[in-house]
Amino acid sequence: MTKQHKKYMKIALDLAAKGNPSPNPYVGCVVVKDKKILCKGYHTKCGKAHAEVEAINHFISGAKIEKLQNQKKKTSIKKIKINKALRKDQLRGSTIYITLEPCTHYGRTPPCVDKIIDVKPKEVVIAMLDPNKRICGRGVKKLREAGINVIIGILEEEAKKLNKTYVQYVTTGKPFVFMKSAMTMNWKITWGDGRNKQITGDKSNEFVHELRNKVDAILVGINTIMRDNPQLTTRLEGKETKNPIRVILDSKLKIPLSSNVLRDNNVIIITGKQNRISSKKKNYLRSKGIKVFVFKEERISIKKAIWVLGKLGISSVLIEGGARINTSALKAEIVDEIFFLVAPFIVNDKNSLGVFSNNAGNLHFKKISINKLGKDFIVNAVPRY
Amino acid sequence: MTKQHKKYMKIALDLAAKGNPSPNPYVGCVVVKDKKILCKGYHTKCGKAHAEVEAINHFISGAKIEKLQNQKKKTSIKKIKINKALRKDQLRGSTIYITLEPCTHYGRTPPCVDKIIDVKPKEVVIAMLDPNKRICGRGVKKLREAGINVIIGILEEEAKKLNKTYVQYVTTGKPFVFMKSAMTMNWKITWGDGRNKQITGDKSNEFVHELRNKVDAILVGINTIMRDNPQLTTRLEGKETKNPIRVILDSKLKIPLSSNVLRDNNVIIITGKQNRISSKKKNYLRSKGIKVFVFKEERISIKKAIWVLGKLGISSVLIEGGARINTSALKAEIVDEIFFLVAPFIVNDKNSLGVFSNNAGNLHFKKISINKLGKDFIVNAVPRY
Repeated sequence: MTKQHKKYMKIALDLAAKGNPSPNPYVGCVVVKDKKILCKGYHTKCGKAHAEVEAINHFISGAKIEKLQNQKKKTSIKKIKINKALRKDQLRGSTIYITLEPCTHYGRTPPCVDKIIDVKPKEVVIAMLDPNKRICGRGVKKLREAGINVIIGILEEEAKKLNKTYVQYVTTGKPFVFMKSAMTMNWKITWGDGRNKQITGDKSNEFVHELRNKVDAILVGINTIMRDNPQLTTRLEGKETKNPIRVILDSKLKIPLSSNVLRDNNVIIITGKQNRISSKKKNYLRSKGIKVFVFKEERISIKKAIWVLGKLGISSVLIEGGARINTSALKAEIVDEIFFLVAPFIVNDKNSLGVFSNNAGNLHFKKISINKLGKDFIVNAVPRY
Repeated sequence: MTKQHKKYMKIALDLAAKGNPSPNPYVGCVVVKDKKILCKGYHTKCGKAHAEVEAINHFISGAKIEKLQNQKKKTSIKKIKINKALRKDQLRGSTIYITLEPCTHYGRTPPCVDKIIDVKPKEVVIAMLDPNKRICGRGVKKLREAGINVIIGILEEEAKKLNKTYVQYVTTGKPFVFMKSAMTMNWKITWGDGRNKQITGDKSNEFVHELRNKVDAILVGINTIMRDNPQLTTRLEGKETKNPIRVILDSKLKIPLSSNVLRDNNVIIITGKQNRISSKKKNYLRSKGIKVFVFKEERISIKKAIWVLGKLGISSVLIEGGARINTSALKAEIVDEIFFLVAPFIVNDKNSLGVFSNNAGNLHFKKISINKLGKDFIVNAVPRY
């Protein structure tokens, strides 16, 4: 029986991973009856239907109805209603696999648990409880109170891994922080001229944009803006993408108003001690809809910045810094996972910039792996502080 | 037929790889008759029997005779002789697989080609011709003149790869140069205190000693001797090993006479412009049997040093340098293959030394691969100049 459960939960997990729901969790759902999958669904993105609702609605009012309408062009509304009721009835006594405990609260969408109870399944199999304090255990309780058998913990590790950013964020309030650096084999992030154009190859570039597509925010230092004038947008060919919020640490509010990163107002600027910065510039930026936070300190604490982002509902941050930001982030012990994209050559030049400053301190890892990525290598590491 | 040839040649190549014959080539031999392997052999080390002789002699006078002697304790010498002749006769009409063309000259051992002709095989299958000018094609010619069918080129690429150091050395006179560096992920070869003790783990250490065991010489700069006082010997538990010649580039003859590396005289010291160095020290070292070469230039050219080593019959050199030697070697374009042993952590300290100096120039690679080696990673790369 567990083998069957694992089989269908694996399908649900693979479905879940297709979504891009941050700051919501990844959720997949599979409805099975008489060893046949009746319907599937996943949470595609924040604001859209949850996985369970997606699966059930799709089955009740989805593809098959459309097919009927095509056959007889003028299907009466009544007939569709009858069909819907009949189809809903087919879900009775099914087993519903969900990668995460169903929600019990009204958020952007109504609670999923009611939708599930409504179709009267025999059993609900859940990979993991929702660590969100508003839900944790309540979804399961409600299902059981409705007389539904609930099994918890099938492929729990895999489900937790998939939702590692969500789990950390809802349990601690600290966004999950990724650090990415594209560099040469000898840890240089720029060529001899100090510019970082095209160190790594196309596959690495694509990987970075996939990462940007998944996170809520990108964080850079003002030096990166001044030096490279990047767009920091998500660019993936033939794919629906979202741009993360660009967060810029700029203690003296030096940012040029013509910066590529200010082409839209999906930007947060964190700046330092008020009397040092231009009020006019600050007000102008705010008038454009850009959030400008003024920290009391002269030097911005990256740790404080990360917690502030958490308070704003940002659950994951990708640091794409230069040596200074990377070093501060590691010293502040806020980095949860690192991706080093390593180009297969060596740049020896006193003007080429390194990944870290000399004062970054030693860094050890809990987990580390290296794999090929096109012509480059990707190092995936979890710091041990 | 080719499939059969490849099968037996593969066995011969695997056997060949077991040897440690430098500066001689790796050679393996398999004798087959009626689809049965009669005997096998490989060149174990320089000065010992060549693979063909090893295989044939083992068959004629080897294990089986001993068995006979055990059965009847007092076997007459005559009987053994008769047995030998009978057994030699069994080799007639066989196919002999050799990974390298048999030699035709008297070196440390008599020519193998005569030994082969003597047992009257039907056919000899050879992976590659011996690129040594004294042999190249002559072995094959002699076999054919004796009426033996000769096939050349079975698994030729594999055979050439196995003997890459030999092939380069006998065709160019330049030793094959390996560079090895044990380092942190951010390319530091020492801790903050400037010492390089235990950066990488046991497996990497073992790999270095395997490498030392295979090469004819290790080359270091005087700074490594002064800083780390290494032994530069081969230490592999439970294995017969050989120590490579230690070559030290020491332009001012600064080497302390108490250095660990001077515990024996298997050492070559290359020093600079005569009037700068101590004649007394030089003569003392020479009196101990240590070779001291005095180059005319004040700064030693590592390129010239490598060619001088080639003239001394050294076919392969492992550079285990610090930043200065590594950088000179790369700039001189003498390095044929690199092994970076990378420990999974980062040392950020302005006093920790790097793998290269800043003036090493950019370096690209023709081939590169990364694999796990214990807790470390091993990067194997072929420079593209």
